[in-house]
Amino acid sequence: MTKPVGFDPKSLPESNSTSYPEPWRTQAAKRWNRRVGDHGGLKNFGVNLTRIEPGGVSSQRHWHLKQDEFVYVLEGEAVMITDAGEKLMKPGMCACFPAGAKNGHHFLNRTSKDVLLLVVGDRTPGDSGEYPDIDMTVALQPDGSFRFFRKDGTPY
Amino acid sequence: MTKPVGFDPKSLPESNSTSYPEPWRTQAAKRWNRRVGDHGGLKNFGVNLTRIEPGGVSSQRHWHLKQDEFVYVLEGEAVMITDAGEKLMKPGMCACFPAGAKNGHHFLNRTSKDVLLLVVGDRTPGDSGEYPDIDMTVALQPDGSFRFFRKDGTPY
Repeated sequence: MTKPVGFDPKSLPESNSTSYPEPWRTQAAKRWNRRVGDHGGLKNFGVNLTRIEPGGVSSQRHWHLKQDEFVYVLEGEAVMITDAGEKLMKPGMCACFPAGAKNGHHFLNRTSKDVLLLVVGDRTPGDSGEYPDIDMTVALQPDGSFRFFRKDGTPY
Repeated sequence: MTKPVGFDPKSLPESNSTSYPEPWRTQAAKRWNRRVGDHGGLKNFGVNLTRIEPGGVSSQRHWHLKQDEFVYVLEGEAVMITDAGEKLMKPGMCACFPAGAKNGHHFLNRTSKDVLLLVVGDRTPGDSGEYPDIDMTVALQPDGSFRFFRKDGTPY
């Protein structure tokens, strides 16, 4: 099977779907993903072109136990929130979130223009993660889906 | 240990070192890498900011057996060579090279300005690869180094 080689990722359809339970599902509505790596046949890591509309947020603040994450700012200005506080991220800046570093992070768009991020994460099995600001944890399932739990272990 | 979160990858030092044997070592001299993911503490995949000077080439044309590769053009115009021929890659375009797809690829800079690529590859152990245009194969070693062989199996 010949997979496409060499394309404009902006030509792909985008989706604001999320597996978050409410109320975080609704809060994710201004974040749109284009699944660039999937389109190109990559399996070992995912590559998303993530567009955050004004007032939107990339995700709930989170960290991964086993998976690395990389974010590169392509367009617009985002505010990155980590345990260290806020940092303005301009085009050409990037951030690395190594697996197991319990430094929850996400990106906000407080401007009036779209933010465009290139987001890479590997697919190491058995990943889990935590959301420091809300009562939620996540566990990657063997089928690739995510299950969400309260911090007392009860499922959403 | 606190790793840096949020930085300008252009602030990192760059190197044109390569593990290629001659004569391909010399031909790699116009390709400069900044090891962005390593700097940020990532281990599951590598992220390089790769600068190709005018007249330079990203690598010898190659494919990977077990590792996925992703390339995003940040600046300049590169000519991508694959089994399908040449393709002009402008800023904002990307290419995916899934593990095991025996479609050798590399990027040439035929312009008078630098080409800047963001290159991501995972680190699945036991990777190997082949160079369709030259008498060379490569095998990733358990220590993370590369060993190069002629196609009759004799080492370089």
